[in-house]
Amino acid sequence: MTPLDRAPDRTPVPAGTGLTLEDATVDATPGTPGPLPEVHTTRAAFRAALAVRVRAAAVNGITAPTVGLVPTMGALHGGHAALVRQARAENDIVIASVFVNPLQFGDPADLEHYPRTLEEDREILGAAGCELVFAPDVEEMYPGYPDAPIVTVSAGRMGEVLEGASRPGHFDGVCTVVAKLWNITAPPAPARLRSYFGQKDAQQLAVLRRLQADLDIAVEIRPVPLVRSPEGLALSSRNTRLSPESLEAALVLHRALAGLREDADAGRPLGLEAARALVEAEPLARLDYLEIVDHATLEPLTAEQLDAPLEQEALALVAAAFEPVRLIDNVVLPVP
Amino acid sequence: MTPLDRAPDRTPVPAGTGLTLEDATVDATPGTPGPLPEVHTTRAAFRAALAVRVRAAAVNGITAPTVGLVPTMGALHGGHAALVRQARAENDIVIASVFVNPLQFGDPADLEHYPRTLEEDREILGAAGCELVFAPDVEEMYPGYPDAPIVTVSAGRMGEVLEGASRPGHFDGVCTVVAKLWNITAPPAPARLRSYFGQKDAQQLAVLRRLQADLDIAVEIRPVPLVRSPEGLALSSRNTRLSPESLEAALVLHRALAGLREDADAGRPLGLEAARALVEAEPLARLDYLEIVDHATLEPLTAEQLDAPLEQEALALVAAAFEPVRLIDNVVLPVP
Repeated sequence: MTPLDRAPDRTPVPAGTGLTLEDATVDATPGTPGPLPEVHTTRAAFRAALAVRVRAAAVNGITAPTVGLVPTMGALHGGHAALVRQARAENDIVIASVFVNPLQFGDPADLEHYPRTLEEDREILGAAGCELVFAPDVEEMYPGYPDAPIVTVSAGRMGEVLEGASRPGHFDGVCTVVAKLWNITAPPAPARLRSYFGQKDAQQLAVLRRLQADLDIAVEIRPVPLVRSPEGLALSSRNTRLSPESLEAALVLHRALAGLREDADAGRPLGLEAARALVEAEPLARLDYLEIVDHATLEPLTAEQLDAPLEQEALALVAAAFEPVRLIDNVVLPVP
Repeated sequence: MTPLDRAPDRTPVPAGTGLTLEDATVDATPGTPGPLPEVHTTRAAFRAALAVRVRAAAVNGITAPTVGLVPTMGALHGGHAALVRQARAENDIVIASVFVNPLQFGDPADLEHYPRTLEEDREILGAAGCELVFAPDVEEMYPGYPDAPIVTVSAGRMGEVLEGASRPGHFDGVCTVVAKLWNITAPPAPARLRSYFGQKDAQQLAVLRRLQADLDIAVEIRPVPLVRSPEGLALSSRNTRLSPESLEAALVLHRALAGLREDADAGRPLGLEAARALVEAEPLARLDYLEIVDHATLEPLTAEQLDAPLEQEALALVAAAFEPVRLIDNVVLPVP
């Protein structure tokens, strides 16, 4: 069991990210055990195994199979399982990666203590429908790390705002490893690659969309919706660490975002200050940020843009601490 | 005619880089006019045209054709023609890109004044055997540039030394555009991509090898040897701007590098200080750097490594000004 799996319950699984522990659910118990996926630790062996499956699909009449990839750092939970299940539902072949990426950690202690639970991960992946796993070590991914020079990907401005403001270099590390993983797991044409990420980590998803477009990488990004409790709280393994009072107080995040969504749907001016004031009025919450940004660029909307009906899809993101837990949430604001 | 083509002569064409004007020769006159290559300005149209050629190769019995790519910034000269001819000799399909990449220019004036000569470029490419050209504009390559946020590639330490020391960001820009070009021109499997770069720009070649490996991009990098005059001067369009005295003086670069190569071949200590002293003793030369570095990492060799027979391939690089011209040269130092 991973530290995240101690208190299984039966809440619906949330849309988890592939790359952080942010939106773990408390339910990682596989429903039905599936066949254990094949695991490969080298790029060459993984690619050979993937090519075998692509050829097998062709033999079965699927000449242009789709391959669904779920990149993870392991320590899997129900959020990851939801990603894998969506990939299973939408693709001919389902693969996952399990790699704790040192480039995206700021604090070496966090990296050192990050849970490594490959055997449990394998069971969760198999039960959710994953058939092939790439689980390299650091030397396979970054030969000579950390001493060797390395060419990396820079997320640019989009990686420096919001979550990036308190995690310098984090999104650069995410972009670097995801670019590598996409290239390593690219199936031979005419097979096509799709990659699954949770909408809960909205900034990561926006940055990775830009990575795909800006470097022209042949992959289709598939977002997996965020899942909420009946009361509206975005599901996260962290929720189990909230006191009953904080659990109640944390609903303010959804209320604030829902108000903005209603504004957007109605074509009203977006009440950004009112939404911030709502969170700030909650005694148990310490607001880190609540921002409304362009969905594609993460640039804050101007006062004029907030006052007029939206011309482009926007994103409202919030982060707040309910000690000792920091929560994030977001909502897409559509063009009315 | 480009500014580089004004004084054609019949010296052998040098190994030109695809991405700078550094090693232009003075001879860009096509030997025999070839069929003009097809030019496409959008990624989609280019990829469709490339796919047609890959299918045509299959019809002709070449089921896994190789595609040779020569990335250029246009203003083509004999150096580029040599790259294209090598690509023609080694591949089933030969393609080139012509794109003046704003990300690799430090000075906006340099970018603005960079020659744009697509029609002449097309003739040179066709004569050398290129059949298909990707010539996008800036908006096609970097939508929203320069205002939009952008995910880029960072060359890291290898981009900050040697030529990078005086050109901050240059190699980041080169890596970004080359990663994009490799992804855009990647042919459908089982066709394979090869990409051609001149050894004259040894640092660029070393950085791009690292880019390929570190991001696991499916491309084979093919270096094209540097070409020297009978006296040993590395051929460059800039040589035509040297006075007769400087032309003579500039031979000191090759003498210094050749001495190091002899040391390496003989397994003797590498006379780095002696080589620097040789250049510094030339009154018309102003030495910028002369370094011996690991070929793979561009890290300077330690005093101990200079004194012992080489255990890994090294590279000696020199840059010096012979006013008003700055010249670069390099030599590979093999393991004895």
